[in-house]
Amino acid sequence: MAGNTFGTLFKLTTFGESHGIALGGVIDGCPAGLAIDFDFIQNELDKRKPGQSRITTQRKEADKVEFLSGIFEGKTTGTPIGFTIHNTNEKSKDYDHIKDSFRPSHADYTYESKYGHRDHRGGGRSSARETACRVVGGAIAKLVLKHYNININAYVTQAGKLKLDKPYTAYNIENTYNNPARCPDEKMAQEMFDYIDEIRKEGDTIGGITTCVVKGCPVGLGSPVFDRLEADLAKAMLGINATKGFEIGSGFNGVSLKGSEHNDEFFCHPEPVEGLDKKVGTKTNNSGGVQGGISNGEDIYFNVAFKPVATIMKSQNSIDKNGNTVIVEGKGRHDPCVLPRAIAIVEAMTAMVIIDHLLINKTTTL
Amino acid sequence: MAGNTFGTLFKLTTFGESHGIALGGVIDGCPAGLAIDFDFIQNELDKRKPGQSRITTQRKEADKVEFLSGIFEGKTTGTPIGFTIHNTNEKSKDYDHIKDSFRPSHADYTYESKYGHRDHRGGGRSSARETACRVVGGAIAKLVLKHYNININAYVTQAGKLKLDKPYTAYNIENTYNNPARCPDEKMAQEMFDYIDEIRKEGDTIGGITTCVVKGCPVGLGSPVFDRLEADLAKAMLGINATKGFEIGSGFNGVSLKGSEHNDEFFCHPEPVEGLDKKVGTKTNNSGGVQGGISNGEDIYFNVAFKPVATIMKSQNSIDKNGNTVIVEGKGRHDPCVLPRAIAIVEAMTAMVIIDHLLINKTTTL
Amino acid sequence: MAGNTFGTLFKLTTFGESHGIALGGVIDGCPAGLAIDFDFIQNELDKRKPGQSRITTQRKEADKVEFLSGIFEGKTTGTPIGFTIHNTNEKSKDYDHIKDSFRPSHADYTYESKYGHRDHRGGGRSSARETACRVVGGAIAKLVLKHYNININAYVTQAGKLKLDKPYTAYNIENTYNNPARCPDEKMAQEMFDYIDEIRKEGDTIGGITTCVVKGCPVGLGSPVFDRLEADLAKAMLGINATKGFEIGSGFNGVSLKGSEHNDEFFCHPEPVEGLDKKVGTKTNNSGGVQGGISNGEDIYFNVAFKPVATIMKSQNSIDKNGNTVIVEGKGRHDPCVLPRAIAIVEAMTAMVIIDHLLINKTTTL
Amino acid sequence: MAGNTFGTLFKLTTFGESHGIALGGVIDGCPAGLAIDFDFIQNELDKRKPGQSRITTQRKEADKVEFLSGIFEGKTTGTPIGFTIHNTNEKSKDYDHIKDSFRPSHADYTYESKYGHRDHRGGGRSSARETACRVVGGAIAKLVLKHYNININAYVTQAGKLKLDKPYTAYNIENTYNNPARCPDEKMAQEMFDYIDEIRKEGDTIGGITTCVVKGCPVGLGSPVFDRLEADLAKAMLGINATKGFEIGSGFNGVSLKGSEHNDEFFCHPEPVEGLDKKVGTKTNNSGGVQGGISNGEDIYFNVAFKPVATIMKSQNSIDKNGNTVIVEGKGRHDPCVLPRAIAIVEAMTAMVIIDHLLINKTTTL
Repeated sequence: MAGNTFGTLFKLTTFGESHGIALGGVIDGCPAGLAIDFDFIQNELDKRKPGQSRITTQRKEADKVEFLSGIFEGKTTGTPIGFTIHNTNEKSKDYDHIKDSFRPSHADYTYESKYGHRDHRGGGRSSARETACRVVGGAIAKLVLKHYNININAYVTQAGKLKLDKPYTAYNIENTYNNPARCPDEKMAQEMFDYIDEIRKEGDTIGGITTCVVKGCPVGLGSPVFDRLEADLAKAMLGINATKGFEIGSGFNGVSLKGSEHNDEFFCHPEPVEGLDKKVGTKTNNSGGVQGGISNGEDIYFNVAFKPVATIMKSQNSIDKNGNTVIVEGKGRHDPCVLPRAIAIVEAMTAMVIIDHLLINKTTTL
Repeated sequence: MAGNTFGTLFKLTTFGESHGIALGGVIDGCPAGLAIDFDFIQNELDKRKPGQSRITTQRKEADKVEFLSGIFEGKTTGTPIGFTIHNTNEKSKDYDHIKDSFRPSHADYTYESKYGHRDHRGGGRSSARETACRVVGGAIAKLVLKHYNININAYVTQAGKLKLDKPYTAYNIENTYNNPARCPDEKMAQEMFDYIDEIRKEGDTIGGITTCVVKGCPVGLGSPVFDRLEADLAKAMLGINATKGFEIGSGFNGVSLKGSEHNDEFFCHPEPVEGLDKKVGTKTNNSGGVQGGISNGEDIYFNVAFKPVATIMKSQNSIDKNGNTVIVEGKGRHDPCVLPRAIAIVEAMTAMVIIDHLLINKTTTL
Repeated sequence: MAGNTFGTLFKLTTFGESHGIALGGVIDGCPAGLAIDFDFIQNELDKRKPGQSRITTQRKEADKVEFLSGIFEGKTTGTPIGFTIHNTNEKSKDYDHIKDSFRPSHADYTYESKYGHRDHRGGGRSSARETACRVVGGAIAKLVLKHYNININAYVTQAGKLKLDKPYTAYNIENTYNNPARCPDEKMAQEMFDYIDEIRKEGDTIGGITTCVVKGCPVGLGSPVFDRLEADLAKAMLGINATKGFEIGSGFNGVSLKGSEHNDEFFCHPEPVEGLDKKVGTKTNNSGGVQGGISNGEDIYFNVAFKPVATIMKSQNSIDKNGNTVIVEGKGRHDPCVLPRAIAIVEAMTAMVIIDHLLINKTTTL
Repeated sequence: MAGNTFGTLFKLTTFGESHGIALGGVIDGCPAGLAIDFDFIQNELDKRKPGQSRITTQRKEADKVEFLSGIFEGKTTGTPIGFTIHNTNEKSKDYDHIKDSFRPSHADYTYESKYGHRDHRGGGRSSARETACRVVGGAIAKLVLKHYNININAYVTQAGKLKLDKPYTAYNIENTYNNPARCPDEKMAQEMFDYIDEIRKEGDTIGGITTCVVKGCPVGLGSPVFDRLEADLAKAMLGINATKGFEIGSGFNGVSLKGSEHNDEFFCHPEPVEGLDKKVGTKTNNSGGVQGGISNGEDIYFNVAFKPVATIMKSQNSIDKNGNTVIVEGKGRHDPCVLPRAIAIVEAMTAMVIIDHLLINKTTTL
């Protein structure tokens, strides 16, 4: 269990290093007969792609995906979908100085200790470059979810100390991609952009929070005990590079509410709601769309915390393989704030969790 | 994948409903030759057991575990360890009123929708009573971890708005079980107890936060991509009833730090440290003991948010199966605050994550 | 992966030793809403039960199954079905002589080597007594399959050198349980009975072959590559104690046919066939109902070879733990021929493979 | 569970169709630090490659594997090994005639029924071309096994009715690759070659049996119940295209032996045997190296039955998608007998089973 496969029925297995020949993956378990919209997939990749603006890393990668199998005459065949994304703009020499040294808060030390050997170039397998493959898997999952009218949108809620102070329902999430900060509030977006740009000039980095919302999820996804829907979402999110926290619904703030304040009252929609396959709703949604581990048909929403990127353009004290004190210089290309690119990954992982539970749920009853 | 199995190599499968004949489980993959300390296991169960004090549910259950297999002459044989815990104090009549109605923020509605049929007595499978089985699995995992000198301790950090304001290193965690609030700070423990007791008298409930610390974890546990150690911990925690959030290391607060502030500087211990199998340390620990998804030998620490218990002793508006408006009365026995009992479950799930990755890690190199 | 769980979506986990307190298991993933026929389940267990006739072991076990969870008001709830079967007639003293010695062709030596420690009483976990739990899992699987009109029947084709010489289509399989030899041909059944009884009197044992037939299996079960339907059947069969071989359709005899002789010609049924959900058939069935790893709607049939039981009532040379030469005496109760009881296990394992693939197949298309 | 992943800890996931852009796979869980011998891997592929002699298919494929990740400076890094094999010599036009028709005993009908849509060119995913990827996985597994001094050799035992009549110990298996029939007996090899060539000229095909022998397997691999070593071998073998049977040790012939004849007597080697890590042996080996599901240190040997290839150069009656009667012409390139190429696949699958259990076994004790 080397941990490179995600999912139970809809499974993504990824491979590839930051400066290797290619990254890639295999999607197994995608339902047959799905029409593949290649432009949509590339567009999803473009949302994560480096070099989109001044506040993302300047590594230039086309991130063109090549599908090798599993699609015939534009439709999935039910057989595994293999794909590759070739690396083209790696600058491995930039990493010679860390061949034997450990960058603070990077995976250099833990990889070296665990495996006795590592590909140090660009962080090797620990690089967030691997997440491009997740976006491919997520894009295909999204195409399946579209078929079921399920939509997933993430946006940047917080960058450093700059923070949207209202719940997701107060914003028009569709505006997220109108600006490079990926924040649906125009004013805040500009502030975030300026702030991140300033941090970049300092040679430093900053963290942030993304909010993700799933609309149209049917009632019944998730399992009661260990594989609760929120448990699988939490695993998916904490499996993304640089994440440090996850909260769903009322989250950490909900702990100081009383039960009588927190409980979500059920009601029946008096008339059928268009596009809504259900009659039952809740007046509030502190549950975050999940009760007893199972989706209840309300919006699913959650936050994910990202730490500041560990690569900074400053010299730092560290040690090398032999335990000698060294100074690690600030080199290599990196993101001053990972959030604007991370939301594509958050959406992709979410899509894969939802589709997996949707497929599992087909087997619940006779 | 109905979600009743946890773990990859050390696997716990649980079964049982709140008011059924018995709960139980199977632990598969426990290494052979482990001496079983039955008193230790029962003691772990007693930490989670109902009826411990005025601020826990008054259901009286002995929670005696009976082991049926897998142990011979006091030692594990490598074959599966089957066990049962019989229910003795269920009062099913208390639940007749929710046979057809849905309690707010409970699993009644989602179970009914997903399965078309549910055991409503005491919440059936959705009851936290199931977690007794996890404590058995966790206790056996802890016995294995003791062999490796790994210790796990959780405590109550926050109950409602009452909150410890220092990091875990400021407290003597060993004191946690000196008081019924399970808080290592005596003064705060008393305040929490009084507060929860007051909430109880109101017929209401309150949430809280637990902090969990793993000491002695060797370098190298966890996998780089999807199965990061923190990802599996997050899944384990969000798989516990009533949890809404997880954060590791700097967590949600770390997002507003700069990389230069957040990065943990490596150093070498000049002399061997007793009981420490490593030379390398970090001066700070914002990483929370995990870097690149893999443990780095520092303390692993994380917080888990629990919402207020949904069962309250107040009447609430709701609906029944047929969509009629009903009033759900406040009945049944419940905890005014789940935290004091929950820390045993948090520890148990943590122990199972760590032992699983410890076993997986044995297969990493030739 | 200690190997005590079978199946992917419909999963059986078993535990228990021959002379422990109880055997038992957990069935997870059984669809909700299935009416449970307890008499049917007990009847399946009775087919495997020891002490049925002179030619089976004289150990007397009621093999009463107790269900602990997962069934409410007579129907499955979608939650895990826990069950136990208590041991009542173990005679552990009969096994004192093998505490330190290794019986030839038993698991004593391999268990001792692998685990460093074993429950020697009655063979511990290696005893075929464990298969009672598989029959429970299989019985529930059969109840699901009945819902889909799929029937599974196994019978004894060969006992020692006594062998039915016609294909399964020549016999009325319904007659299998009319005689203790479990052979659908009355004359051969009597010969087999006499022969096994003679072997028993000699204190010896004999092997045999069982044939199993699945009727009514829909088109489309199985996966193309590693998880072919026949691959999962083969694993299921070779996972039964004492089995040494598996062949499906034309099997080992088919290898000397030419392709032009072996190929099964497709045709269309001119009129709808009652109870048949398909139009396409094959004129011959050398494929055994599976093509490209996927069921084609024809009968699935296969043979399973069982070696003679290793326990014999004769003294045998062997060694003990310390490498000393010893004589192992013939003691303990055993079957002179395992076949008459084994067919219940073959059917059970088959049922679990089919239901698993039936559930997986629900997720193949949008 | 679309079935394209094999293994538990050492996992191979494959993708690719016969006439797609490329085949490929991901090997996850290979221990870190393994030196990769690329020539060895290519040599293994060459053993399976088409066009080796007159008695194999004339499709010309270089079967050059390109590794994309997971290997750095000639050694595995513990991260997933991605690889591709590009198709170069596909002749898709040869398959136009079966776009809508079903070839007898092929996967055309079952794929079309299961998925509603298929890549008909060259059989798509059902083509044995996929097995090239298994040989890559197996080659890497073999490199790990070499480190443990475990050797795997398969050879052709039977082609049509031509059959070696002695056990594997009577032949020098090293000679297998001295002749195109892959039979270690020179005289039989020539007879087989002539016979297969004659069958080829007839436009027909023939089946056969391969024997596989594992030498040097340590005691202790395998699990007691469902995941017996022989169960996983059986699954691996029946997961290869065109296989119809598996038998281990005494197999189908052993059923007519008595227990007193079949049991393998234990003894102790009086002196340490060079290259032998054990003292205990058995005088006979009817068990085939596995007892109670666990390897006992003796040679593991088993037979696999392959049916005649379904593609023949003769016209055959069949039907099309719409149920019309059609005549399927004999077209496309194919093997008159798959055995000479199949042994490489049998060895590869065996290697992956053994390495998987070897890794699992590392977690058995404290």
